[in-house]
Amino acid sequence: MEVPGFKGAAVEAGIKYQGRLDLGLIYSETACVPAAVFTTNVVKAAPVLDSIGLLAESEGFRAIVVNSGNANACTGLRGLEDCAEIRKKAAGLLGCGENEVFVASTGVIGAFLPMERYLDGVEMACHALSENGLMKVSEAMLTTDTRPKVAMREVENRGSAIRIFGMAKGAGMIGPNMGLPQATMLAFVLTDAVVEGSFWQEILEKGVDASFNRITVDGDTSTNDTVLALANGKARNHVLDGYGELSKSFSLALSEVLESLAEQIVMDGEGATKCVRVMVRGAATNEEARACARAISNSPLVKTAFFGGDPNWGRILAAAGRSGASFDPAKVNILVGDVLLVEKGMTVGQEAEEKAAVQMKRHMFTVQIDLRAGKSDYSMLTCDLSVEYVRINADYRT
Amino acid sequence: MEVPGFKGAAVEAGIKYQGRLDLGLIYSETACVPAAVFTTNVVKAAPVLDSIGLLAESEGFRAIVVNSGNANACTGLRGLEDCAEIRKKAAGLLGCGENEVFVASTGVIGAFLPMERYLDGVEMACHALSENGLMKVSEAMLTTDTRPKVAMREVENRGSAIRIFGMAKGAGMIGPNMGLPQATMLAFVLTDAVVEGSFWQEILEKGVDASFNRITVDGDTSTNDTVLALANGKARNHVLDGYGELSKSFSLALSEVLESLAEQIVMDGEGATKCVRVMVRGAATNEEARACARAISNSPLVKTAFFGGDPNWGRILAAAGRSGASFDPAKVNILVGDVLLVEKGMTVGQEAEEKAAVQMKRHMFTVQIDLRAGKSDYSMLTCDLSVEYVRINADYRT
Repeated sequence: MEVPGFKGAAVEAGIKYQGRLDLGLIYSETACVPAAVFTTNVVKAAPVLDSIGLLAESEGFRAIVVNSGNANACTGLRGLEDCAEIRKKAAGLLGCGENEVFVASTGVIGAFLPMERYLDGVEMACHALSENGLMKVSEAMLTTDTRPKVAMREVENRGSAIRIFGMAKGAGMIGPNMGLPQATMLAFVLTDAVVEGSFWQEILEKGVDASFNRITVDGDTSTNDTVLALANGKARNHVLDGYGELSKSFSLALSEVLESLAEQIVMDGEGATKCVRVMVRGAATNEEARACARAISNSPLVKTAFFGGDPNWGRILAAAGRSGASFDPAKVNILVGDVLLVEKGMTVGQEAEEKAAVQMKRHMFTVQIDLRAGKSDYSMLTCDLSVEYVRINADYRT
Repeated sequence: MEVPGFKGAAVEAGIKYQGRLDLGLIYSETACVPAAVFTTNVVKAAPVLDSIGLLAESEGFRAIVVNSGNANACTGLRGLEDCAEIRKKAAGLLGCGENEVFVASTGVIGAFLPMERYLDGVEMACHALSENGLMKVSEAMLTTDTRPKVAMREVENRGSAIRIFGMAKGAGMIGPNMGLPQATMLAFVLTDAVVEGSFWQEILEKGVDASFNRITVDGDTSTNDTVLALANGKARNHVLDGYGELSKSFSLALSEVLESLAEQIVMDGEGATKCVRVMVRGAATNEEARACARAISNSPLVKTAFFGGDPNWGRILAAAGRSGASFDPAKVNILVGDVLLVEKGMTVGQEAEEKAAVQMKRHMFTVQIDLRAGKSDYSMLTCDLSVEYVRINADYRT
């Protein structure tokens, strides 16, 4: 997958992993208009702080350096200095400004980057840039992910097309936070559109809220969550500023790219065997709908029942009941797929449970809970909690 | 363990399990002063609703019927009628009022009680009552628990002793909620003290807040959480009303009983191999201290790291960072046991991590995080998240 004007490369820098790509570089021939959202965690990794600083002082961006295996989080002043050194190195080789390069990291918290190997990796990557190298970057940014996550949409523009390409990583420490905007792990969006900066930021925030903010693997919000979006203007379209049909189509296409990436993250959640859409309907307020969806989607008991394929609706109802949402339990309906399992707070019967259990054998299914307390809906994507999740995370670091 | 004036019995009623005690009866020769706290979950099981109703209309209580295997939750009007029938049956056999009998249930949500077997069980239990039968009740109330949980304290009173005996069950769906008072699963406290009703309620609430409300296994708050406390007055002490040394000693002893039971619940948490005290220090406010302790104690990533014995402090700091507590990450200290692992937000070094890893091999250890943002502390007990937890809960019902 290619986007005009962008190049990519990835190398084995040996940052933590051996024998696999772990350092990626995205490069644009021309200066890009940026948009970005970051973790709301109080504890922000050095590259997040570094990027926030850059966005405050720079306007055009040319490159993103990304690594896996080390998050460069909780590394103090040295972590920030390392980011600056990486930017300087890349800028020197690429012939752009030090303030035109983003750095993004994911991996273990609390360790310093192995700078010698890192900078060697940057140099190798700069020399390896190519139009079809973006897919390799999507591989280099993976940690416990089992596969790359990419998405592409094209928006028709007077006979030619504007492209939006996204890549993401994230398999654990995935949980939406209350704050907005909030992103989940790393995602990069590249487009050749000409887009006005504030509109670009606005639709990115909206899109992230409807995608990455609605997924959960384990409810843990990372220190490194970052979504960076770069628009290089190569498509030479009329500037997208929020007015007109093209702005609307573009915004929609961006949402689709982000939603696709978010869904791929859940499908590849650590140890996940199933992806479940949790839909809360009829909550009294939007906040309660959201709180209820979050409580169900993050409940270990609900998630282990998903793993076991057990239509244990009592756990779903109990999670809703402790979520802070106000409702009358005697009115609630619950469906798994299209099977009505609970009507007015009580079981529909054994036959319905058996039908629901069949639905729950699928890799993807929907759980709907209608609180019948109002008009607010909210939906989230979650995955099951498996034996493998525990194995992965008990062994992750040591 | 015996308490003057109380008798107990347990039988195999075959409510769900076969070949094990699943129905217990606690009986007092004389009318008892009650105190109670219940789940804050919006979804309350029939016996919880039934007991709340009784407490509003009755003053003296004589008995508690408890069963495992079926929670009688989400069972609508029929669930409430079943409670009334159980009370009627027990009252008839025991020669007391229908409104002097509590019913408590734990187990699967959403199924009706098998009333014929249940009432036969009540009859058998009424005939089997004995002074040393209380221990058997503590067995009959277990579900996924692997062992009974009991605690006893004596308070000196003019050469003789006032007894406080507690029993509890609870291994999963254990999570404190924001509301107060709030209890966790089932616990019964029996004493022969003469105690004034409002003082009894007051110290029970305080004690629960410092014990059951500070433990978590999976953060899920049950629909059936109940703590019932009965004081039968057999000790003939001066009435305990909150004034004087005896009231103080009694209150302290009650706290110790509740804390012991709470600790036993965590130690026997579903699949738990380790019990961990999470101590948050130096938070800006009490609420933030509590939120921070809860976020760390419920984080799947932190809990799997506990399971793996991995001093992965980055996950602890990340959980603190998303908890809503305000602090400067560059000031935070983290200790495992007495090993300083993180100083001013950064790792102390490899040697410290190795020492911490040794501490984490123990069945019980402490994690301290000092946010250095204020003067508020809060501590909680949690357990690790093991492969076995997932197995138990994926298989629990079907």
